[in-house]
Amino acid sequence: MNLDAEIALAHRLADAARAEIVPLFRSGVDSEAKDDASPVTIADRNAEEAMRKLIEAEFSGDGIHGEEFGVKDGVTGRQWVLDPIDGTTAFLAGRPIFGTLIALLVDGFPVLGMLDQPIAGERWLGIAGQATTFNGKRVETRRCRELSAASIATTGPHYFSQTEGDIFMMLAAKTDHKRMVMGGDCYNYACLASGHLDIVCEAGLKLHDYAALVPIVEGAGGMMCDWAGEPLHAGSDGSVLALGDPARLEDVLEAMGGN
Amino acid sequence: MNLDAEIALAHRLADAARAEIVPLFRSGVDSEAKDDASPVTIADRNAEEAMRKLIEAEFSGDGIHGEEFGVKDGVTGRQWVLDPIDGTTAFLAGRPIFGTLIALLVDGFPVLGMLDQPIAGERWLGIAGQATTFNGKRVETRRCRELSAASIATTGPHYFSQTEGDIFMMLAAKTDHKRMVMGGDCYNYACLASGHLDIVCEAGLKLHDYAALVPIVEGAGGMMCDWAGEPLHAGSDGSVLALGDPARLEDVLEAMGGN
Repeated sequence: MNLDAEIALAHRLADAARAEIVPLFRSGVDSEAKDDASPVTIADRNAEEAMRKLIEAEFSGDGIHGEEFGVKDGVTGRQWVLDPIDGTTAFLAGRPIFGTLIALLVDGFPVLGMLDQPIAGERWLGIAGQATTFNGKRVETRRCRELSAASIATTGPHYFSQTEGDIFMMLAAKTDHKRMVMGGDCYNYACLASGHLDIVCEAGLKLHDYAALVPIVEGAGGMMCDWAGEPLHAGSDGSVLALGDPARLEDVLEAMGGN
Repeated sequence: MNLDAEIALAHRLADAARAEIVPLFRSGVDSEAKDDASPVTIADRNAEEAMRKLIEAEFSGDGIHGEEFGVKDGVTGRQWVLDPIDGTTAFLAGRPIFGTLIALLVDGFPVLGMLDQPIAGERWLGIAGQATTFNGKRVETRRCRELSAASIATTGPHYFSQTEGDIFMMLAAKTDHKRMVMGGDCYNYACLASGHLDIVCEAGLKLHDYAALVPIVEGAGGMMCDWAGEPLHAGSDGSVLALGDPARLEDVLEAMGGN
């Protein structure tokens, strides 16, 4: 599959999102609550609108699934999945570790993923079957010889149900939990792809939260799956595991009680 | 109190720490566990050594209290308190939101505080009785009309005891908890000083974790205290509250059950 045109477009999408987001970072921009009570800002909306326009101009037959403006059906079997600001709470708190997520799905499976950090000027790009790059340079996950030496990240326990939180804690207790980090949103997966974290474990994610991350993590040598170890796709249940070292999968699933 | 020489030194200390830390960020540097099981790296140690040398050369009579190399007694009643990398777990995870903390205490109370983020090139400076600056420009906390509109941050629930965690959750439940962020270490206090967060609530901090943050937050119009509402000093119990709007103190303490 030649994706040169799609990759070029993804870069332009991220550039367009940056242009909307950067001036509003630490600007005192207001947020409002969405139906699910999560916050959204004019930066989220403007960035998604800018990206949708570019996609519609270039690939008018492709579907679009954006966090803020919903689903536009396509006719090609392809769908662009957009999260203009993954980590709006971090954006609002003035932290430069949120991300713009851009994915291209074919028949429901992600084949292209981009994570752009507009403030730091950082961009990760993953393409199915190719090496992941960070600002154009190849990155790789790191090996992890045993679970007890693994560092783990999750955005926050308040995103888990009670049961999910209990399962997470069972896993965290088997890792090197003194190196556990909270917060981070999509940025954790990028740090894992670049070899700085071993495990990210989350639940309740939506397609726009994880679609772009799959090619990024897997192209760097890691793996992503749901909490049952199954590949992620448009119909996944929102439980997400990322492993820098796929050899640890069985240990991780066992630590989680085989769920 | 004229602190011009001390401010100039603090800038040189932060520059020296940057020179040690930047080349080791995302370098795959190893960590080891300290006596309290928290991680430390060669970057922490090299940065503190570089800073101690500069202090000893310029103010040889001042005491030094560093996270990694302990206490050197002084004869002036003044003490430099250093945390070369606050947020070593974040540093190890590849996140550019850790900080180098530099404080000057006089008779146990912080009169100068600096937070330097080496990767992003960000520096907050607070001086008792003066306006806090971020990269040389004045910053201010924001007003918060009611607790239910407040955003709150804490580095992670795993740093709380069970009782502390329960008290934190009582407070968090009264805030706009959909904007709650986890992780962040010292960087949360800087974001609060710059007007992007309303409350930071932590416990178990050591002097080197909070000393530098007091002049930064208070010089920006906020307040810092322990969980009883008392000012922070060298003998505090490690419970820490930072409020962007001091008018919310009573609401916060009440939400925490009057502890």
